[in-house]
Amino acid sequence: MTGHTVNLKVHWGDTDMAGIIYYPNYFNWFNIGSHTLFESIGIPLKELMFEDKIALPILDVGCSFHKPLYFGDEIKVVTRVTEVREKVFRMEHEVYKGNELTGKGHELRSWVQFSQEGNLKACTIPDDVRSKMMAVMPATSVER
Amino acid sequence: MTGHTVNLKVHWGDTDMAGIIYYPNYFNWFNIGSHTLFESIGIPLKELMFEDKIALPILDVGCSFHKPLYFGDEIKVVTRVTEVREKVFRMEHEVYKGNELTGKGHELRSWVQFSQEGNLKACTIPDDVRSKMMAVMPATSVER
Amino acid sequence: MTGHTVNLKVHWGDTDMAGIIYYPNYFNWFNIGSHTLFESIGIPLKELMFEDKIALPILDVGCSFHKPLYFGDEIKVVTRVTEVREKVFRMEHEVYKGNELTGKGHELRSWVQFSQEGNLKACTIPDDVRSKMMAVMPATSVER
Amino acid sequence: MTGHTVNLKVHWGDTDMAGIIYYPNYFNWFNIGSHTLFESIGIPLKELMFEDKIALPILDVGCSFHKPLYFGDEIKVVTRVTEVREKVFRMEHEVYKGNELTGKGHELRSWVQFSQEGNLKACTIPDDVRSKMMAVMPATSVER
Repeated sequence: MTGHTVNLKVHWGDTDMAGIIYYPNYFNWFNIGSHTLFESIGIPLKELMFEDKIALPILDVGCSFHKPLYFGDEIKVVTRVTEVREKVFRMEHEVYKGNELTGKGHELRSWVQFSQEGNLKACTIPDDVRSKMMAVMPATSVER
Repeated sequence: MTGHTVNLKVHWGDTDMAGIIYYPNYFNWFNIGSHTLFESIGIPLKELMFEDKIALPILDVGCSFHKPLYFGDEIKVVTRVTEVREKVFRMEHEVYKGNELTGKGHELRSWVQFSQEGNLKACTIPDDVRSKMMAVMPATSVER
Repeated sequence: MTGHTVNLKVHWGDTDMAGIIYYPNYFNWFNIGSHTLFESIGIPLKELMFEDKIALPILDVGCSFHKPLYFGDEIKVVTRVTEVREKVFRMEHEVYKGNELTGKGHELRSWVQFSQEGNLKACTIPDDVRSKMMAVMPATSVER
Repeated sequence: MTGHTVNLKVHWGDTDMAGIIYYPNYFNWFNIGSHTLFESIGIPLKELMFEDKIALPILDVGCSFHKPLYFGDEIKVVTRVTEVREKVFRMEHEVYKGNELTGKGHELRSWVQFSQEGNLKACTIPDDVRSKMMAVMPATSVER
């Protein structure tokens, strides 16, 4: 399985004075990759967020950068679910320009309910969500 | 009266590939200017937002740019209240590098209550807030 | 003539704690609209920027906001060239969610050459660029 | 040695619809922390960048998040140099709200020269820069 792909573009506002991508934008792309993957497998993220006050905050994140990206570059972000634990799951992302890997990273996210007061409480990932995530996990990944 | 001043700096991430400020950052600075002015005159914005679900969304905004800003530049943002209507008020902002005006603009903001469902409803600006805002308006400004 | 249209989406990172779009993102969309329009009419912006050190900095910008936008909203940005002067031109943008106008604004931009030292010099817009821009101007717009 | 400290604030535009910090802003803070540390030890980053076309792009970055941050929170970013290799160095960052650690992370950066064409070439870190960085490294850190 090759992961879920989103096609994006490096916009002017994504660059910095070195003439290349300002790297925190990679994490915007990862975010878009995760959200788009969820939508594609029938997890209604928008409704979960607006109706059930569920969000998926990041516990840990990382990225390594292999090649610079420039204004106008067309990229694809390939996203996978690689681990599903009780309340926490891991997404991995690769960014390509053509066939060249420019960066890769991960997000460790928690399934969290927000109260009206803005407090966060990690919850067990619902069974139907877990099933949908596991159905698209690469064979070498791990459920715990 | 010369307005409320906030000292800021142009950070690396504020620049773009032209080597100068990416201009939407001016609106971040205006936002900081408005919030800091409110705090300075005893309008407890943070509490209003978290406890009373009051926010101050923008109805209209504009900025003209006179000089470029570069990484590392130290700037000051001078903010004034220039108009207070029933539910709406106007803030004006000037950005200086030393004595040189680099840009100036305005925000037209509304006093809005957010419901739990995320709906917005413009409300009459409370009298105590109005009084505090008018007390710092330049003499040539207008209440309607 | 109805303008050049770009389809975009409101991403999670575009929102703020009021639960709606953080408005400076409108200016990112305007930027994308202008760049995409230029590409569509055969003005090779990327090459101009990388090879000829031409950029299109903003002299004046504004936007009015009519309706809030939320995470997940699908929007279209409609962009027009509405004025071409000697060294300066004006772009106008409308943002729609379905058929509903959520905001509209303008950019006044200058045709500028950057030196190696980072200095900016406004230049006459080249004839071929001017012709291409005027060819897509609505009939009621003005050349000066 | 306790590291170099920068005091910052969580601004409205740093939040997202969950009502907490949009986490990629941590990397803006890390960037500010690194730049401010360099300035404080007499490495003239701005001149290096503008005159010598030296920049410090990121090879690898990561962050773990322990507590949410909210609009208006006053934070301090504590930054250390923890490793200096031939062309690469490592910065570590901790973010505190009062005495509470809210997140910590690292940047692996390269000493790079940019050509006029926008190409990047990693260079040996100059001896005077290396000396200044090592002078502020905690005793347990490593030079390779």
